[in-house]
Amino acid sequence: MQATLDATTGVNTLRQELRNLYDDIADALDDDRVEVLPDYFTEDCLYKVTSRENFDQGLPGALMYCDGAAMLRDRILAIRETQVYEPRSWRHFISGLCVLNADDDTIRARANFLVTEAMSDEDPRVFVVGRYVDTLVRRGGRLLFKERIAVCDNHYVRRSIIMPI
Amino acid sequence: MQATLDATTGVNTLRQELRNLYDDIADALDDDRVEVLPDYFTEDCLYKVTSRENFDQGLPGALMYCDGAAMLRDRILAIRETQVYEPRSWRHFISGLCVLNADDDTIRARANFLVTEAMSDEDPRVFVVGRYVDTLVRRGGRLLFKERIAVCDNHYVRRSIIMPI
Amino acid sequence: MQATLDATTGVNTLRQELRNLYDDIADALDDDRVEVLPDYFTEDCLYKVTSRENFDQGLPGALMYCDGAAMLRDRILAIRETQVYEPRSWRHFISGLCVLNADDDTIRARANFLVTEAMSDEDPRVFVVGRYVDTLVRRGGRLLFKERIAVCDNHYVRRSIIMPI
Repeated sequence: MQATLDATTGVNTLRQELRNLYDDIADALDDDRVEVLPDYFTEDCLYKVTSRENFDQGLPGALMYCDGAAMLRDRILAIRETQVYEPRSWRHFISGLCVLNADDDTIRARANFLVTEAMSDEDPRVFVVGRYVDTLVRRGGRLLFKERIAVCDNHYVRRSIIMPI
Repeated sequence: MQATLDATTGVNTLRQELRNLYDDIADALDDDRVEVLPDYFTEDCLYKVTSRENFDQGLPGALMYCDGAAMLRDRILAIRETQVYEPRSWRHFISGLCVLNADDDTIRARANFLVTEAMSDEDPRVFVVGRYVDTLVRRGGRLLFKERIAVCDNHYVRRSIIMPI
Repeated sequence: MQATLDATTGVNTLRQELRNLYDDIADALDDDRVEVLPDYFTEDCLYKVTSRENFDQGLPGALMYCDGAAMLRDRILAIRETQVYEPRSWRHFISGLCVLNADDDTIRARANFLVTEAMSDEDPRVFVVGRYVDTLVRRGGRLLFKERIAVCDNHYVRRSIIMPI
């Protein structure tokens, strides 16, 4: 019984730690500090933005695909240095974080995201909605993403996804 | 003073426990596992989806009405076995959970919900927005819903509500 | 190391305390109890609703500006007693609360907000989206807002903002 209580407490503590982590990353993205994103990932990570259709059918197609933190850094550098796009602001809303399993220091978790987009001359609108399907590992006391798949409910993302979600 | 501090700690712990519970249920609904929903309710529960207008005026009309967990199970079975509807995905966003009172193992709480709906060939849009008005009891260490009323701000739910909110 | 762990625990506890506080205020606003809002502020507070454009450029223009809790009370009284507007309901969704710094009992924090609005004969829609940029102080065990700036992503708030956000 005590073991069960301790296990419950442990899962609740982990859940809260993950909520904080997810909020930190969302805040960095909303605050135009996308450069810090790779620091939350392992070097051998997979970062992917895909559609629900592709995800459910196991299809490889993705809106954004980074195989390793180096590729994620490259991608961000490319966005910053070469991509031209109208200024806009994004805002993340994250809800429903669940821990699917937490064995052997490997954690599988998911959470819903809703991101609004506001162009400089338009009101904010719902831009993408979906869920993060994540695998994390603990390295030196910190939780790092080994895999983050942002699965979008959107059938068709009208405006191309510029930044990582 | 110590008693007050302990009481505050207790309410905060309860609030966090409820946030976890609400997130678990939302995750089950979004993940197409609606069959687990009745397990979160007492056998003599009331589950209702209604409009703000009806709720505020105390009118009995409801978009969904289940008087007991058995009726909720029946309803879900009916949805699964008989109802034909275009595939779509829902996503819950829950915020603002508050504990209204917590006396004698009966807890009254409420929280806001926003649910997006995405048809297979359309982008997600805001589907229903409202608040849960809930009464919970503790049975054998678990919190169960004795009453959950999902009060929708929507004047008119364009697409009929198929699943419990 | 222990000090670091304690500091981390302290920040996490504060973060959770702030989440509860933000949810309490949102609940009061959604529940038509705006009169309690000034109780969450210091007497010499600043409460402001402004646009991202104005905020980023340091421009003074604001959609709502209250210099002190007394002015906030006046404003609310004026809304209640003199303003005529069609009944509607608002619903706050708050996400991404971050503590920016917490030195010397002065806390700087921010969080995203999304508020839906539902007129009595229309479905809810996204009304305002933005972020709270806040400074809080601890007085007699309670956290009070010394400054709350609600920075809206909206370029143009179609319907005038009636109530504090």
